[in-house]
Amino acid sequence: MATFQDKIELRTKGHTDVLDITAEVGRIVTASKVRTGMVNVSGTGSTVAISTLEYEPGCISDLRRALDLIAPANSNYAHNARWGDDNGYAHLRSALMGTAKTFPVCEGRLGIGTWQQIILCDFDDRPRGREVIVTVFGDPQ
Amino acid sequence: MATFQDKIELRTKGHTDVLDITAEVGRIVTASKVRTGMVNVSGTGSTVAISTLEYEPGCISDLRRALDLIAPANSNYAHNARWGDDNGYAHLRSALMGTAKTFPVCEGRLGIGTWQQIILCDFDDRPRGREVIVTVFGDPQ
Amino acid sequence: MATFQDKIELRTKGHTDVLDITAEVGRIVTASKVRTGMVNVSGTGSTVAISTLEYEPGCISDLRRALDLIAPANSNYAHNARWGDDNGYAHLRSALMGTAKTFPVCEGRLGIGTWQQIILCDFDDRPRGREVIVTVFGDPQ
Repeated sequence: MATFQDKIELRTKGHTDVLDITAEVGRIVTASKVRTGMVNVSGTGSTVAISTLEYEPGCISDLRRALDLIAPANSNYAHNARWGDDNGYAHLRSALMGTAKTFPVCEGRLGIGTWQQIILCDFDDRPRGREVIVTVFGDPQ
Repeated sequence: MATFQDKIELRTKGHTDVLDITAEVGRIVTASKVRTGMVNVSGTGSTVAISTLEYEPGCISDLRRALDLIAPANSNYAHNARWGDDNGYAHLRSALMGTAKTFPVCEGRLGIGTWQQIILCDFDDRPRGREVIVTVFGDPQ
Repeated sequence: MATFQDKIELRTKGHTDVLDITAEVGRIVTASKVRTGMVNVSGTGSTVAISTLEYEPGCISDLRRALDLIAPANSNYAHNARWGDDNGYAHLRSALMGTAKTFPVCEGRLGIGTWQQIILCDFDDRPRGREVIVTVFGDPQ
């Protein structure tokens, strides 16, 4: 049984920037030499989310539009009123979607679908440097 | 420390079909002989979700109605316009709810509540064969 | 490789009571003596959620207001009609947000952001005793 941990460092544009991090996660799974196990993918911070999506411009646009209805990017938030911030919507989107997900590793590869990519969403209202911690567990090859 | 992985194969009706997979997950936990640990339950694909629900017709109906408001099953999606598909809403529901969840294993059993069942939601717009990968980790009995 | 499991027992007020459980989770991570790994945090029951939030009154208020729109706390639920309950909204919120999350452990500590706290949400319509199961895995120090 092995534990392997690495980080992905990214620059985002903020404003619900949706990035495909499947290849980076896959490289860490390969480097871990785990054959059967699981991989935890965790975005650090309270204005990001980790999920999966068919990564094509239509689905990304649909996700952004839905989040604009659930948690509009306006100033009408108690968080903004309290702290003089403008990213209350970003905190809300992160809490609703979750910042970490765990996926299976099967035969040394990420056990997700062909049209299913792992995404990092950065909801914050400005470009940021982001860190995603990837932890792989399981039986070695 | 042991790793154990198995698959559940299901036929779904699509259209937000909600299936109770608790018994199948429980059987894999038992087969793993893990006493203390955790179990990852992951639906493969970008139009499914894994979550928990009190599995009774009222809660299932309430979940469907809420998702019909959050992501209506109409053709008004950029994904549909781009690809000639009709399942843009299904991709959106999957990204918002998440396709994988991890639960504790306590004294050799699934550590969830009495009225809490593990569900697979298939949002796609047609019947499908689905695969759920179940990975159990922990100290053996 | 070590597995360590403990429970957090809490009293909640219900009605979307949002509690910061970061310190308790952190104490269990420390007690586990895991240096590199992950920690699963799982609320038992079908009317709770586990997520992360910047734990300050503004963000808590914003989360409550958003959930009041997504799943209003009224009696208009099939679950209520069927069982004479009043907590249909609570089941729905739990299914949408999820009852369990898994985070990394890095250098013996919870690998989350400075402004990111782990929260238990109790959506039920009355005060309750709640149990959160915390499972830590990984390489020892």
